[in-house]
Amino acid sequence: MIPQSNRQVRLKSRPSGIPQAEHFEIVETPVPALRDREFIVRNEFLSVEPAMRGWVSAVANYSDPVGIGEVMRSFSAGTVVASRHPGFAEGEHVMGMLGWQDYAVSDGSNVTRKVTETDLPLSLSLGVLGLNGITAYFGLIEAGQPRAGDTVVVSTAAGAVGSAVGQIAKLSGCRTVGITGGPEKVKLCTGEFGYDAAIDYKAGDVAEALAAACPRGIDVYFDNTAGAISDAVMAQLAAKARVVICGTASIPSWNPPPSGPRVERHLLVKRARMQGFLIFDYLHRYEEAIARLAAWVRDGSLRYREDIVDGIEHCPGAIAELYRGENLGKRLIRLKP
Amino acid sequence: MIPQSNRQVRLKSRPSGIPQAEHFEIVETPVPALRDREFIVRNEFLSVEPAMRGWVSAVANYSDPVGIGEVMRSFSAGTVVASRHPGFAEGEHVMGMLGWQDYAVSDGSNVTRKVTETDLPLSLSLGVLGLNGITAYFGLIEAGQPRAGDTVVVSTAAGAVGSAVGQIAKLSGCRTVGITGGPEKVKLCTGEFGYDAAIDYKAGDVAEALAAACPRGIDVYFDNTAGAISDAVMAQLAAKARVVICGTASIPSWNPPPSGPRVERHLLVKRARMQGFLIFDYLHRYEEAIARLAAWVRDGSLRYREDIVDGIEHCPGAIAELYRGENLGKRLIRLKP
Repeated sequence: MIPQSNRQVRLKSRPSGIPQAEHFEIVETPVPALRDREFIVRNEFLSVEPAMRGWVSAVANYSDPVGIGEVMRSFSAGTVVASRHPGFAEGEHVMGMLGWQDYAVSDGSNVTRKVTETDLPLSLSLGVLGLNGITAYFGLIEAGQPRAGDTVVVSTAAGAVGSAVGQIAKLSGCRTVGITGGPEKVKLCTGEFGYDAAIDYKAGDVAEALAAACPRGIDVYFDNTAGAISDAVMAQLAAKARVVICGTASIPSWNPPPSGPRVERHLLVKRARMQGFLIFDYLHRYEEAIARLAAWVRDGSLRYREDIVDGIEHCPGAIAELYRGENLGKRLIRLKP
Repeated sequence: MIPQSNRQVRLKSRPSGIPQAEHFEIVETPVPALRDREFIVRNEFLSVEPAMRGWVSAVANYSDPVGIGEVMRSFSAGTVVASRHPGFAEGEHVMGMLGWQDYAVSDGSNVTRKVTETDLPLSLSLGVLGLNGITAYFGLIEAGQPRAGDTVVVSTAAGAVGSAVGQIAKLSGCRTVGITGGPEKVKLCTGEFGYDAAIDYKAGDVAEALAAACPRGIDVYFDNTAGAISDAVMAQLAAKARVVICGTASIPSWNPPPSGPRVERHLLVKRARMQGFLIFDYLHRYEEAIARLAAWVRDGSLRYREDIVDGIEHCPGAIAELYRGENLGKRLIRLKP
């Protein structure tokens, strides 16, 4: 039952901007023998996240960068297939920092949680019931503090995080405006994800479209992009607005930091707040978010899209594809046993 | 007892950047007759504030701009010299939006408060016991949320607001680092205002000096300047840092907004917060702040500096002088009766 061979996607060289396929290599390696208090997880789904760019960047970040030659850090979900750990039994589902590989040997420290929503697909533990959904939930609720009647603008509005933000804002009684790229994603926003309005940033003047969609200004901006889209939003904040900085997808490199219009006067005149948000600060409250998100998924009020590709060979190019916006829904890599 | 003639400093033309002497004119005009529920204040001190730049700017602000030909909006402090108002008696001291003029006729609506600290100089009601002190108090305590042991950095550290921020931070158990211009103000910071360290931004590399003075990063940044000083601070924030945007003294014009290094990644990686602060949101809590500030002034733990010039003819050039940093202490214009 203990597998012999393990394919790993390792970091081969350090990218200066968006990681490309050539920065990774796939290596076949033996699975190490289990020691006491260890177990083996067979990964079924590997996650692809915008944050991975930061995980391999040499520029100061919230965690040490992945070392050259190391397995690419990732959230993965799978099944315990062998265990010498009293807390993890064969057959249990787990999600955690198990890496881009077929099998992960773990002592439990890199497991984020046991996936107990057995009535729902395991893949959701990496998306709407995983870091994406939890990020949307706490980022919006805690940092964004939406109130009924607020106008909430979301960038990368059709993405794994953005689509959940828009729907949770709607469930909170807010008017929701999504910013996304291309007519297909605009349709997804106003159709599947229930946005009151959606703006195609590739199709025209974002500032004009925002002014039309947000006549009373923008109370909450959930920002996954930075860049020109955010510049347009910042100029249209309402008094006491809250800006949640969750990602900076539109900035190809932060080394050196690019320039943009200064935000101080917008913040001062509107007594607005701009706040960086990282889900890792909410580790102790994950189950609270997942319980709510799962209930909304079950009753149909929280929808999600998955964009699943089969085979570990898709990993090396996956981050670059994500930044090119090629996926329609949460991008996952599925591994066949 | 009712005065006949009133000198007023009126806005003559609209400046595009820092208001200069030529944007104002001094006009002699009769004092209007008192109607029922009105009273006359003889102004003894007129305030000069960095915020006045915004009050005369055509660019969107938190209040309507002063109209061309109108008396320049200002906080002033004086004595009621005639009254047909049941709430205001002759001889009482008041502070409020009484304008740059000898006499103000008021129905009470533009009075901020009666000055009841009769054991302390009336001029303090326009400085450390006025908007400057209240701004420092609520800006630091509410937006900055200092905790004992925090490192607090203040720009325009020797100014009317900054000097109070530094001292209140020190009273809150923080380590304080002031940024100011010139050796005289550096000495004032570390001497009179008790900063643990002071940086002369004109004398060398601010980033290097900050790194030396703040080895564990910056927990609170009370920002009165924006610009290059803030860029250096933002790159050295500690995790969960709070940046209070109180003023933007170093930016000559916001029309169009100047560019600078984008702050999103600093905020994201450090889960930091950047927040605009305007004292007018705390109108209902002024007395709470003044009671604390006055107690600290009385027991000597809150020091202040005043830079008083005599004569209304100093008003027109006073804002420009403030932005050139020529004053050493709170700039007030004193009027002789």
